[in-house]
Amino acid sequence: MADEKALTPRATDFSAWYNEVIQRAELADYSPVRGCMVIRPNGYAIWEQMQRALDGMFKETGHQNAYFPLFIPQSFLAKEAEHVEGFAPETAVVTHGGGKLLEEPLVVRPTSETIIYSMYAKWIQSYRDLPVLLNQWANVVRWEMRTRLFLRTTEFLWQEGHTAHATEAEAEAEARQMLGVYRRFAEEWMAMPVVTGRKTESEKFAGALRTYAIEALMQDNKALQAGTSHHLGQNFAKAFDVRFQTETGGMAHVWNTSWGVSTRLIGGLIMTHSDDRGLVCPPRLAQFQAVIVPIWKNDAERVAVLEAGERLRRALHAGGVRVHLDARDGMKPGAKYYEWEGRGVPFRVEVGPRDVAADTVMLACRTGGKEPVPQGGLVERLYAAMDRMHADLFEAARARREAASLRGPRSRQEFTDFLEGDGGFVYAGFCGDPAVEAEIKAATKATIRVLPDPEFRSPEAPATCIWTGRPAVAEALWARAY
Amino acid sequence: MADEKALTPRATDFSAWYNEVIQRAELADYSPVRGCMVIRPNGYAIWEQMQRALDGMFKETGHQNAYFPLFIPQSFLAKEAEHVEGFAPETAVVTHGGGKLLEEPLVVRPTSETIIYSMYAKWIQSYRDLPVLLNQWANVVRWEMRTRLFLRTTEFLWQEGHTAHATEAEAEAEARQMLGVYRRFAEEWMAMPVVTGRKTESEKFAGALRTYAIEALMQDNKALQAGTSHHLGQNFAKAFDVRFQTETGGMAHVWNTSWGVSTRLIGGLIMTHSDDRGLVCPPRLAQFQAVIVPIWKNDAERVAVLEAGERLRRALHAGGVRVHLDARDGMKPGAKYYEWEGRGVPFRVEVGPRDVAADTVMLACRTGGKEPVPQGGLVERLYAAMDRMHADLFEAARARREAASLRGPRSRQEFTDFLEGDGGFVYAGFCGDPAVEAEIKAATKATIRVLPDPEFRSPEAPATCIWTGRPAVAEALWARAY
Repeated sequence: MADEKALTPRATDFSAWYNEVIQRAELADYSPVRGCMVIRPNGYAIWEQMQRALDGMFKETGHQNAYFPLFIPQSFLAKEAEHVEGFAPETAVVTHGGGKLLEEPLVVRPTSETIIYSMYAKWIQSYRDLPVLLNQWANVVRWEMRTRLFLRTTEFLWQEGHTAHATEAEAEAEARQMLGVYRRFAEEWMAMPVVTGRKTESEKFAGALRTYAIEALMQDNKALQAGTSHHLGQNFAKAFDVRFQTETGGMAHVWNTSWGVSTRLIGGLIMTHSDDRGLVCPPRLAQFQAVIVPIWKNDAERVAVLEAGERLRRALHAGGVRVHLDARDGMKPGAKYYEWEGRGVPFRVEVGPRDVAADTVMLACRTGGKEPVPQGGLVERLYAAMDRMHADLFEAARARREAASLRGPRSRQEFTDFLEGDGGFVYAGFCGDPAVEAEIKAATKATIRVLPDPEFRSPEAPATCIWTGRPAVAEALWARAY
Repeated sequence: MADEKALTPRATDFSAWYNEVIQRAELADYSPVRGCMVIRPNGYAIWEQMQRALDGMFKETGHQNAYFPLFIPQSFLAKEAEHVEGFAPETAVVTHGGGKLLEEPLVVRPTSETIIYSMYAKWIQSYRDLPVLLNQWANVVRWEMRTRLFLRTTEFLWQEGHTAHATEAEAEAEARQMLGVYRRFAEEWMAMPVVTGRKTESEKFAGALRTYAIEALMQDNKALQAGTSHHLGQNFAKAFDVRFQTETGGMAHVWNTSWGVSTRLIGGLIMTHSDDRGLVCPPRLAQFQAVIVPIWKNDAERVAVLEAGERLRRALHAGGVRVHLDARDGMKPGAKYYEWEGRGVPFRVEVGPRDVAADTVMLACRTGGKEPVPQGGLVERLYAAMDRMHADLFEAARARREAASLRGPRSRQEFTDFLEGDGGFVYAGFCGDPAVEAEIKAATKATIRVLPDPEFRSPEAPATCIWTGRPAVAEALWARAY
């Protein structure tokens, strides 16, 4: 049970605040296994809501779920040169099974391209077998040195889509489509605004032709990469010999994409919306969208308010609202408010004796505002209030991001000062040279998050590189990042 | 794509038949990793339906989902003496992480009692924190020497419930309740009749006080343990020091239960219902409950039947039926029938030009029967037909099991002859001596599946042990098993 101690304010120590929000809401806990976390029921419930929404979107776009092995023969990882370079250093390796030393060590999957495309080589024979549009919900392991709950853990939960197509254009469209799905999920479910765009060569996925990403700005003005979608080209198809007979009778390698989001999204949700009183959960992803707290002073009142509370609970539940009646005895209403506030429940419905008499309830929103409303029509009122809260959260996060975005700095100094001050997103011209990218990173700790898609670019394209003064090949979005 | 080759009949080679059913329906495939399988979309879709139904039942009985680490420090496994003896020999061990030798090897979870109860020790302080009722959906690894798709694989998917209670009686009630949930799931969703009961000391879970199980009889008259529920007593609570302050102010160890079912259930589903033409999937768990196959000979007919098919698809979908319209061009209706038959789809809805004219469809059931029915009211008709098919599948399986059950054999010879003949379930008196149990196993390859619950016992309790003639302490259910 949470104790009533104020959280460290965000302004004092954002990192301490983040951990305390998680502890107070009982979202996750440290485990005895280095770098691995336990996702507690309150945290897992958010993940379940995320899974349900995403899974629906994947199926609507024609994908099916499947499941591939946790273990990958070490030699598979080595078949794609960039891929092994990127992932081998952070793998966990099984050397013994059933009490014996294995002939070939097995890697615990850090991502599943290699094992999946080895199966696709078996399943895909002809153009008639294409496209293959699969997704899997799974755990993956990447040996991380510095871990943070949800944001970077040795083991994490995610989904990884893996598709195979007959043409480059189709694979490109798929990678783009799934980036759009992620953006829509971030906006419409998490109320988290994101910038979409393409990663540079230095930042792309190990083994990809192109990586697209959604990037969000957290309240401490650090960026969070919240989802990626890769056009893998024919790199893995060639490494695993995934070929098909074309309509004209020739043989060709398939074109692949892969795309994923993970439990990291929960970290993004926390750092986008929560406040110094604890978690703020956007209503469409909340375990409970409303909690009913009955208020009584004596037994007669208790019977009446509990009865009214239970009636309301049934009505809201029947209306499809995820609702909980907090009927606990021996706990004051104030203590209950405090607990549900820390857990981020969007709406609190207070029912006291006067409310019962007047056929009203007191409706309080987690982000502020409290008003008496009639019991009749509460379902419709709550849905409207949830939509409003969602829109408000999104708009607040968008405005905060825009206030922390600098477009077109005039000098290296301005660019650096901004990043070393309060920080945020900087949009600036980039000459395209990876060496310059590395130099800027060394100097400012900022990386190119994406080369933004047209919609997010500045009205006037920057003509020169902010660092070298050379002609700019693109506008880049720079930030320090998680 | 499946080729039109007849399956090996069950009567010829049950094991070959089983593998061919899986291949034809594309439920799973062998992977390049020893003992690990790939669950293909058609198989995973059944697992998703199973998960949805079970998850709903767990939540209705007050459980919440959480997620615990994949890795378990090797020393944790050793804390409960029987547990380590049972599981250590079949573990996969991670010795290297991030390129370095680990100080302590990590075991890939074969089951999660140890890691979970180490967390419970941290979370549970007072009787007010009890009961803790958690479940996790996860992958587990047990190094198996002989593997079979779904039935016994090195990695498999499952759910494991883990609960903590203040009293022994409460834990016992929980273990019993979850056994009941599994039985209900087997009967009401899988149409698979089961016998419930308690495992003997030799067959119980390593570390449990008592293990309960549901046991089903497959078409080859071998038993399948389909789910287990363990009352763990205070064994793990003592090993991990999970204690709480009681209402009267003392300190006590909690009482735990754990319970699980796995992707093995899919193997049980296949071996209970399928026939020599392929998979038969009980309708409540089928990916598609009905497939609409339009039939045409020319373009004019094609337009009309596809339009009617799409209209029907929408009507069925709106009615909550999982339906697919097979509008593929260049494939004869017969080839489509063959494919959907092998995939076990419960109902086929054929729509030809004459059906369009007469406002009818031809409704064919996977297990036999085909009749023209009006298009109006098809949703209600399908639901009724699905309920009937479910009841028929259950009753056929129950009758088959009863026909293959021997109650009260009069001699060792009769007992042994039965098991070495066609086999099946034998109910016989047992003296309770583990040495006798081992002797019978060595002689007949049969094990005690359960000491059946009262409902399943023979009308007259056997007075003597079938093997020793000593007084029987219980009636035991014997069978050869998967």
